[in-house]
Amino acid sequence: MQQNDQMAYDRGSTIFSPDGRLYQVEYAREAVKRGSVSIGIKTAEGVVLVAEKRVSSDLLVSETIEKIYTVDDHLAVAASGHVADARQLVEFARRESQRNQYMYEEPLETDTLAKALGDHIQQYTQYGGTRPFGCALLVAGMTRDGPALIESEPSGAIIGYKAAGIGEGRADVEDALEEGYDEGMSIDEGLELAVSVLVDRDDTTLEATEASVVEEDGVRSVTSQELHEYAPEDYDESDEETEE
Amino acid sequence: MQQNDQMAYDRGSTIFSPDGRLYQVEYAREAVKRGSVSIGIKTAEGVVLVAEKRVSSDLLVSETIEKIYTVDDHLAVAASGHVADARQLVEFARRESQRNQYMYEEPLETDTLAKALGDHIQQYTQYGGTRPFGCALLVAGMTRDGPALIESEPSGAIIGYKAAGIGEGRADVEDALEEGYDEGMSIDEGLELAVSVLVDRDDTTLEATEASVVEEDGVRSVTSQELHEYAPEDYDESDEETEE
Amino acid sequence: MQQNDQMAYDRGSTIFSPDGRLYQVEYAREAVKRGSVSIGIKTAEGVVLVAEKRVSSDLLVSETIEKIYTVDDHLAVAASGHVADARQLVEFARRESQRNQYMYEEPLETDTLAKALGDHIQQYTQYGGTRPFGCALLVAGMTRDGPALIESEPSGAIIGYKAAGIGEGRADVEDALEEGYDEGMSIDEGLELAVSVLVDRDDTTLEATEASVVEEDGVRSVTSQELHEYAPEDYDESDEETEE
Amino acid sequence: MQQNDQMAYDRGSTIFSPDGRLYQVEYAREAVKRGSVSIGIKTAEGVVLVAEKRVSSDLLVSETIEKIYTVDDHLAVAASGHVADARQLVEFARRESQRNQYMYEEPLETDTLAKALGDHIQQYTQYGGTRPFGCALLVAGMTRDGPALIESEPSGAIIGYKAAGIGEGRADVEDALEEGYDEGMSIDEGLELAVSVLVDRDDTTLEATEASVVEEDGVRSVTSQELHEYAPEDYDESDEETEE
Amino acid sequence: MQQNDQMAYDRGSTIFSPDGRLYQVEYAREAVKRGSVSIGIKTAEGVVLVAEKRVSSDLLVSETIEKIYTVDDHLAVAASGHVADARQLVEFARRESQRNQYMYEEPLETDTLAKALGDHIQQYTQYGGTRPFGCALLVAGMTRDGPALIESEPSGAIIGYKAAGIGEGRADVEDALEEGYDEGMSIDEGLELAVSVLVDRDDTTLEATEASVVEEDGVRSVTSQELHEYAPEDYDESDEETEE
Amino acid sequence: MQQNDQMAYDRGSTIFSPDGRLYQVEYAREAVKRGSVSIGIKTAEGVVLVAEKRVSSDLLVSETIEKIYTVDDHLAVAASGHVADARQLVEFARRESQRNQYMYEEPLETDTLAKALGDHIQQYTQYGGTRPFGCALLVAGMTRDGPALIESEPSGAIIGYKAAGIGEGRADVEDALEEGYDEGMSIDEGLELAVSVLVDRDDTTLEATEASVVEEDGVRSVTSQELHEYAPEDYDESDEETEE
Amino acid sequence: MQQNDQMAYDRGSTIFSPDGRLYQVEYAREAVKRGSVSIGIKTAEGVVLVAEKRVSSDLLVSETIEKIYTVDDHLAVAASGHVADARQLVEFARRESQRNQYMYEEPLETDTLAKALGDHIQQYTQYGGTRPFGCALLVAGMTRDGPALIESEPSGAIIGYKAAGIGEGRADVEDALEEGYDEGMSIDEGLELAVSVLVDRDDTTLEATEASVVEEDGVRSVTSQELHEYAPEDYDESDEETEE
Repeated sequence: MQQNDQMAYDRGSTIFSPDGRLYQVEYAREAVKRGSVSIGIKTAEGVVLVAEKRVSSDLLVSETIEKIYTVDDHLAVAASGHVADARQLVEFARRESQRNQYMYEEPLETDTLAKALGDHIQQYTQYGGTRPFGCALLVAGMTRDGPALIESEPSGAIIGYKAAGIGEGRADVEDALEEGYDEGMSIDEGLELAVSVLVDRDDTTLEATEASVVEEDGVRSVTSQELHEYAPEDYDESDEETEE
Repeated sequence: MQQNDQMAYDRGSTIFSPDGRLYQVEYAREAVKRGSVSIGIKTAEGVVLVAEKRVSSDLLVSETIEKIYTVDDHLAVAASGHVADARQLVEFARRESQRNQYMYEEPLETDTLAKALGDHIQQYTQYGGTRPFGCALLVAGMTRDGPALIESEPSGAIIGYKAAGIGEGRADVEDALEEGYDEGMSIDEGLELAVSVLVDRDDTTLEATEASVVEEDGVRSVTSQELHEYAPEDYDESDEETEE
Repeated sequence: MQQNDQMAYDRGSTIFSPDGRLYQVEYAREAVKRGSVSIGIKTAEGVVLVAEKRVSSDLLVSETIEKIYTVDDHLAVAASGHVADARQLVEFARRESQRNQYMYEEPLETDTLAKALGDHIQQYTQYGGTRPFGCALLVAGMTRDGPALIESEPSGAIIGYKAAGIGEGRADVEDALEEGYDEGMSIDEGLELAVSVLVDRDDTTLEATEASVVEEDGVRSVTSQELHEYAPEDYDESDEETEE
Repeated sequence: MQQNDQMAYDRGSTIFSPDGRLYQVEYAREAVKRGSVSIGIKTAEGVVLVAEKRVSSDLLVSETIEKIYTVDDHLAVAASGHVADARQLVEFARRESQRNQYMYEEPLETDTLAKALGDHIQQYTQYGGTRPFGCALLVAGMTRDGPALIESEPSGAIIGYKAAGIGEGRADVEDALEEGYDEGMSIDEGLELAVSVLVDRDDTTLEATEASVVEEDGVRSVTSQELHEYAPEDYDESDEETEE
Repeated sequence: MQQNDQMAYDRGSTIFSPDGRLYQVEYAREAVKRGSVSIGIKTAEGVVLVAEKRVSSDLLVSETIEKIYTVDDHLAVAASGHVADARQLVEFARRESQRNQYMYEEPLETDTLAKALGDHIQQYTQYGGTRPFGCALLVAGMTRDGPALIESEPSGAIIGYKAAGIGEGRADVEDALEEGYDEGMSIDEGLELAVSVLVDRDDTTLEATEASVVEEDGVRSVTSQELHEYAPEDYDESDEETEE
Repeated sequence: MQQNDQMAYDRGSTIFSPDGRLYQVEYAREAVKRGSVSIGIKTAEGVVLVAEKRVSSDLLVSETIEKIYTVDDHLAVAASGHVADARQLVEFARRESQRNQYMYEEPLETDTLAKALGDHIQQYTQYGGTRPFGCALLVAGMTRDGPALIESEPSGAIIGYKAAGIGEGRADVEDALEEGYDEGMSIDEGLELAVSVLVDRDDTTLEATEASVVEEDGVRSVTSQELHEYAPEDYDESDEETEE
Repeated sequence: MQQNDQMAYDRGSTIFSPDGRLYQVEYAREAVKRGSVSIGIKTAEGVVLVAEKRVSSDLLVSETIEKIYTVDDHLAVAASGHVADARQLVEFARRESQRNQYMYEEPLETDTLAKALGDHIQQYTQYGGTRPFGCALLVAGMTRDGPALIESEPSGAIIGYKAAGIGEGRADVEDALEEGYDEGMSIDEGLELAVSVLVDRDDTTLEATEASVVEEDGVRSVTSQELHEYAPEDYDESDEETEE
């Protein structure tokens, strides 16, 4: 389809193009690709979430940039894309969790949350007067069947992964994850894999990185200082200083 | 009608083209054709549903891609097209089933569900501010008159079939089904036919396949391992490894 | 009026063209013409409804294609055009019938139903945010004054007929009906006339035909097997086998 | 104003053109002109309404085409233009009449009804999301001051007439009425005048004509058979047979 | 501003043009100018309203064309422009008057009514989904301070006048009023002035004229017969007969 | 930015142009500039408001043109721009004042009213379906801290001034005010300054001028006769007669 | 992307461009850049807010231009961009603070307020019928963990800073802040830094500057007179007089 024709169908969530595509959803995926990368790795012991932050100024307090959010004591999500959109979805997730706790007096299952998120996101792709959410989420939780890692994306589709990357350079990240992944890996090995994938990228330093682990005992935050322990041996901390 | 003219009538559910067509509905059918194939076969003993999944990465947990959904203990549906749209319809179906059980204290009839789905889908083709559903469903159930298989599609039309395929390559699938179908076939023979139709296609492996059987005893899930038993003798499992 | 000018006025139910036409209603009539034909004949004893079905595949269960619907025990309608639209109108008719029974404890009169349908259909031609219904109906009933046959169409107009055809090839069908019609004919003669008009058309076989009779005793369905008894003597059943 | 400029202002009820016109209202008047003619004559004894019908097929039951409607036992209206639109206005009129009877326990005055109709019609010319009504009405009633005949048209304007024609060929009809009208004429003379005006037109036969009289005793329907008594002497009934 | 540019800003009440104009309001003023003229004259004894009617046919009952409306026993309005729009405003005025009487148990002041009308009219110039009112009103009343004459126009502005004309040829009418007006004139002199201004215009006859006087004793209607007494001596009644 | 590009962003309150401007708000400011001028001067003793009126006809009652409105006994506003819009804001202000009196039993502070007005005005610049208010106001009041003069304008911004002009020729008026202003001036000196600024303009006569003073004792109206006392010595009253 | 293509996607908050951008949000950021600059500096003792005002006339009362707003006794915000928009957000913040005080009987945390503001702002970027807020805020507060400074901007994103500038010339301001900033600086040193950054700019004088300090004891306003004490030694007050 030519450029002019595509432009006839890409300015509303509520229309299909002649070949059955929803362009606004596809453009929202582009918004995700413009976001900094987030990585999730499901290990034998739990799920690892590591996210890169874009720190544009030395005066910025990087801790205030949230890429990983705790939903409840056994659920966390990492986001890429429009941060204000992601925050809306995180709040939706937290309300769902509280509602579930209140109504059923038991914690929300990871896949139940992912489906609720997906349904919520889908509504924004079918009705007029709104745009799709411009962000993807990695939902990490401990379930009866062990650790679970599920991605939600702007169409409302939800898919489980052993390891996944969302945001800028997703393809390269997933290649690196496929190479290093092992189902039996420990959380420490998961952190090592995630960190090595991140630092391999030219523009990432561990200073501007956020990490959490969802394990049997709940959600645990990993500081960027702690992350250094998981860095490859040849990782040169002094590089961080020369960053511009 | 020329390209330019068609473009004048294809950007809203709420208008007819001069030749009486609803282009947005036709484009939604294109969205169905872009989806991976699902097959339904009505046998003498029950209905077989087999669906192919698109597994884009080794790290993806293929079990989390749902193509076949249990609606209640005697009803299941297989979907092709936009997965988040399909999930909405499945949830609608489940609510209808629960409402029916609650109000009439008896299970929902297959054709009653199909009509309710069709009516729900039709609304999205007549009123503004929304788009049609970009998915088709195969509704499978056991009724007083035996097994039933009904397709719903984006216009809201519902049609019963002895055997049907929806999604990518529907025409080829239906040709193969017509050739191999026999009304008196058993469920096992139905599974064999479905599997043979699927593996004939270049890009399908049984690993990425989901199946369910709706029979007298209810809905029964068939694992991809079990499906191998129904594969043609010349089916080479090693092919699966070399898939890219 | 030239093509370009027509296109300025034909994309909304809620505007008139400079010559006072409602193009969306006219296009909805085109949708009716694209549908398979339905025939109604008012005889001295009751009303005959016969409808052709489009059976696109041998695996399709033609009984599940509904063209004739029973509204209550003395009222039936045959439809042509968008099937999901027609189903909406049939459900509207059934609700009207139940409401009438409940409120007045007497059956709904045929012309009262036709007017209610026409009013409902008219609303979709005057207000924005929706499209007209893309179907026509033949409403058949027994009234105090004997049998009645009324057509409703996308503008909301309703007109009584002695015999009428809606859908594809309406003009030819009506010519044939005018030639063969007699007000004093019996139901059997009405069925004969309807069947002979249908089988005269190249692409019709009695296998893919649905029929009902509305008579003193209520609505009675006529199977496609029974319809063969009404076929002209030179009708060759073997033709049905060679259909493609 | 040139064609292109007019087209900039004629596609919404809610905008004025630069010269202060409401094109959609003017186009709705064109819809009236496309309708078959209705004639009203106010005589000394009552009001005569005669309306021509378009009978497109011998199988059509012309009695089911309504052009003249009884609103209550002293009020009737004749319509030209979109029949489904006219039916809406007639129902509005009947509800007004019932409401008036219920609230004030006295019959609705003719001019009160005409104003209520005009106000209702005006709303459809000022607010968005709808189109004007594509029909005109002749409202006939007996009042304290004697017979009354009032026309309502798509702008919502209402004007009283001694004799009036609406629909196709209105100008010629009004010329003929002006020539033959006399305020002191009896109802029979009024019917004679109306019939002579109608049969003077090439395409009219009394068979396809509907008539009512609103007089002291209430509304009385005049059959097309009775109308023949009022036909001019040179009216040749055999012409009706040769009509095509 | 060029034609093309103006057209970019003149199709919605809710937008300003770059030079700060509301074109839809200005076009509604054009609609007023297309209406037949109405004249108001404030005299020492009361207010005179005289309005010309357009009588397009001898069969039209000119009394049914209302240009002057009594609001309550001390308030009347004359209108020019879209008659159905004017009727809406008159009904608004009557409701305001009744509400005032009911709530405060005293008659509505002329300027209070004019402001309420102006506010009502202004709403239609600021919000989308509607068009301005296409009419102007002359509001005439007796107040504590004596007679009052206020004009409301499509922007919602309200201005008091000693004498004013609205509708077609307003400029000429106002020139003639300025020349003949005297603040101390009696009602009879006011009627004489209004009549002389009207009959000076080529196309006006007193037969098609409506008049009312608002004076100490209330609103009094002046018949077209009575108006002849106020005509200039050289006014030739026979002219009326030759009118076409 | 070129003309064509500007036109892409200037037809809705709810969009920004690429350079961050709200064109509809800027066009509403043009509407203010088209209005006749209003002047406010804050003196040591109170605030002076003087406004020019456009009197287009000798028959117009200039007192009925309101440019200065009393909000409550210690608050007044002068307006320039669309008069019907201004009246809406004045009514809003009066309701706010009454509400404040009712709820808090104390008079509304000048800056509280100005902020409430600004917030009300801002809403009309952010939401669709409406246009900004096409008027500016000078709010004058006595506060605990002495006299206050605040301008509100179509963006909703509110700014305090020692002396200000709104409407046509604002720039020249403000230059003249800057030259003649002194913070310690008396109310009489303020009126002198305002009058001298007004009569310096070619088209202004004191006959068509309205004035009010807000001082310790409340709001006091100044007649145009009284204003002559404040006119410069060389002001020639006879000029007023020759005005056209 | 070319100019023409960008223009296809930049006129509604509710659509993404093909590369995943929300142009209306980006244009709202341009509106912020058009606003006068505001500076926030987090010191060891509290947060300093200093804002430049645009004083266009000597008659303008610069104190009435608000750029810094007290939200409650421990929270303040500085704004740049559309002032009426900023006022809306400040009122939202004040309502949030009161609601929090009322519900939880404790003061609102700085980051809780910033998130509430960000969520509120995000809504205006996802739903149709509105535009984004055309302003950015610097939220300053004292928290359990000491002073906090958070920026909210038109996308709804919120980010913490040690020191930040918003509005015109932001880039230069941030360069100067990075150079002079020290985490351990006192409030006095923070004021000195802010003032020196401001006066370095050609068009700024301390007369037109507003400042507040949020410290342990609450929010404290700093007059422009006091600000002079923090000016660099070479700052020449006489420059202020020559400003144009």
